[in-house]
Amino acid sequence: MKRNGGREAHVILAASARDMDLFYATGFRAPDPFPFFQIGGRRYLIASDLEVGRAREQSHVHHVLPLSRFLKRLKRRGAVRPGLTEALVEALRERGVTRARVPHDFPVWTADRMRRAGISVKPVLPPFWPARVRKTEEEIRAVRDAAERTGRAIQEGIDLIRRSKPVRGRLRLDGRVLTSEEVRAAVDGTLRDLGMEPQDTIVAGGEQAVDPHHTGSGPLRAGMPVILDVFPRSTRTGFHADITRTVIRGRVTRRLRAMWEAVRDAQALGVDMIRPGANGREIHEAIQALFRDRGFETGPVDGKMQGFFHGTGHGLGLDVHEPPRLSTADEILEEGMVVTVEPGLYYPRLGGIRIEDDVVVRKDGAENLVSLGKVFEV
Amino acid sequence: MKRNGGREAHVILAASARDMDLFYATGFRAPDPFPFFQIGGRRYLIASDLEVGRAREQSHVHHVLPLSRFLKRLKRRGAVRPGLTEALVEALRERGVTRARVPHDFPVWTADRMRRAGISVKPVLPPFWPARVRKTEEEIRAVRDAAERTGRAIQEGIDLIRRSKPVRGRLRLDGRVLTSEEVRAAVDGTLRDLGMEPQDTIVAGGEQAVDPHHTGSGPLRAGMPVILDVFPRSTRTGFHADITRTVIRGRVTRRLRAMWEAVRDAQALGVDMIRPGANGREIHEAIQALFRDRGFETGPVDGKMQGFFHGTGHGLGLDVHEPPRLSTADEILEEGMVVTVEPGLYYPRLGGIRIEDDVVVRKDGAENLVSLGKVFEV
Repeated sequence: MKRNGGREAHVILAASARDMDLFYATGFRAPDPFPFFQIGGRRYLIASDLEVGRAREQSHVHHVLPLSRFLKRLKRRGAVRPGLTEALVEALRERGVTRARVPHDFPVWTADRMRRAGISVKPVLPPFWPARVRKTEEEIRAVRDAAERTGRAIQEGIDLIRRSKPVRGRLRLDGRVLTSEEVRAAVDGTLRDLGMEPQDTIVAGGEQAVDPHHTGSGPLRAGMPVILDVFPRSTRTGFHADITRTVIRGRVTRRLRAMWEAVRDAQALGVDMIRPGANGREIHEAIQALFRDRGFETGPVDGKMQGFFHGTGHGLGLDVHEPPRLSTADEILEEGMVVTVEPGLYYPRLGGIRIEDDVVVRKDGAENLVSLGKVFEV
Repeated sequence: MKRNGGREAHVILAASARDMDLFYATGFRAPDPFPFFQIGGRRYLIASDLEVGRAREQSHVHHVLPLSRFLKRLKRRGAVRPGLTEALVEALRERGVTRARVPHDFPVWTADRMRRAGISVKPVLPPFWPARVRKTEEEIRAVRDAAERTGRAIQEGIDLIRRSKPVRGRLRLDGRVLTSEEVRAAVDGTLRDLGMEPQDTIVAGGEQAVDPHHTGSGPLRAGMPVILDVFPRSTRTGFHADITRTVIRGRVTRRLRAMWEAVRDAQALGVDMIRPGANGREIHEAIQALFRDRGFETGPVDGKMQGFFHGTGHGLGLDVHEPPRLSTADEILEEGMVVTVEPGLYYPRLGGIRIEDDVVVRKDGAENLVSLGKVFEV
């Protein structure tokens, strides 16, 4: 890795509980930021006294360097309040690093310090670790396992809705009004029992479901779709599932049934088109075309978008949203990628419907990692 | 704010569900990054189509600018795949901004783009919003409320330990071994019922408690301290509490009792020393001295630190850890600051003990926001 007399390093400074490029590189989950660098295949991290022991035990880097060693040395040289940034610069310089590749969201304060110390800093757009995009069989197993648990939790939520009764436009269960909160508590509770950490589980019905980001609250309505969108993290593996089902309880109009069938067919079409070499943009456009053909138009009405106005899918793994995207931009699928396929339709007064599975790109097409069935009327 | 023909802006690009400087500035919680800027007291954010409606409803900025407006314009001018960064640069330029103050962890990719567009970028070390450090009465109420709920949840956990019986070195309850997991589930479940979101709740006993960051797992031991350190976020206000209690069940040695009393007295001393103008470093050093006087030494043994080797406390609010620190550096306390006071002692074979309250700096001294009592032997 030598060139122009200096070495190149990949450098990250972040909290590995949130930054999955850092967790991927270290296998070490920590709530507070720490510096990491990799020089020619050798990986280093700098840990505070509090974390050195755990880092040596749990991380798979080659060297865990104690922060205090750098801070002591820097203070002896007269530095005032040296910190992680100064320790990182010192560690890179003593290893002859002159060029650094950093994630696009690397802290500018630290980048500026490195540059002043004569290290060129090149921010890299995602993916920072290209290998992370194509999953190993072990990683695929982790997503399948997460999807299986998530499916069971969603089923718990659907069962509550199924057992409820439509009374004067609302769903009632055991003498009380059934709410988004109660269904969410059932889903999230099951997830926790199964070792999954829920994150902003969506249980949105009625008009709320027309906004794809609304997490849902209050009484659930009869005769309007309820979206359950669940994307928890396995506490054991760190990998996610991301599954959406939409169900309805009460009288169902022909229009709503046609809308659900359009989403179901669009989702199946998307899964069908997935294979190595397929273009995410073309899959997205095929789904847009299917919706148009079925008479479900997309566009702004009174300044608010309706129809199908989000992406078709995204990569899934240690992050809920990773490269690649299946959306308006060209992105070519490769074997081993794990992506969601999640078209939806949203119309004021009618409601929102979305269906989402997680699939892995195999040599001969998509393998669906989700076994949970798809039923609209419950 | 004009100077040298250009205007200055405060700029953030982050996800407000994680970046509390951004949440503080906008009052709007979103899982995905979005750009924000403030020019001479007027606040702007740029939101995707998906989020524009919610941002207008929930945020307290003056202008919510739709991302699509910028992307369309940039594409017309020939930009390839413009994104948040390009939209931000465009929005700043059309408002005549030539200088930007950004958080120290602002994305370097975006900073580089801004600089290439002729905008000087100055990273600012925390606090980015100095006003955030001194809490309003409403914010103090939010922390007190969070502390009250957190105290009730910790009491649930302590009650489980109190009801357990020491049997052959382990704690047993209702015919089974009592574990960290079961106590944590009781604490976290109570928190959720009270509208608090638990985060990595620590229930660590035995040797595990000697590592202050160990969250704890497996059977709890009799006659060794159990640390309960709980720092959840209120889903309603976004504010945190951060409370630690240490209890023991079973036979207690004289040495352990002396250790607990030292921590209790050190913690009370720390609270006593808090007032406007007090120096965090001096409080920290007074606690170090108290421990030394009581015969509890600090230092490395076999390469591992023991004694009291973390900070005495930290600011608390929208983040669990905020400025100021009560630690080895000079930091002067001001009225309205909310800080934790949490000394601890950790010795292999003996165990770990930590006690932590949250206090607000008042004109005449500390007001303790935690009403939960302190009992060692249960």
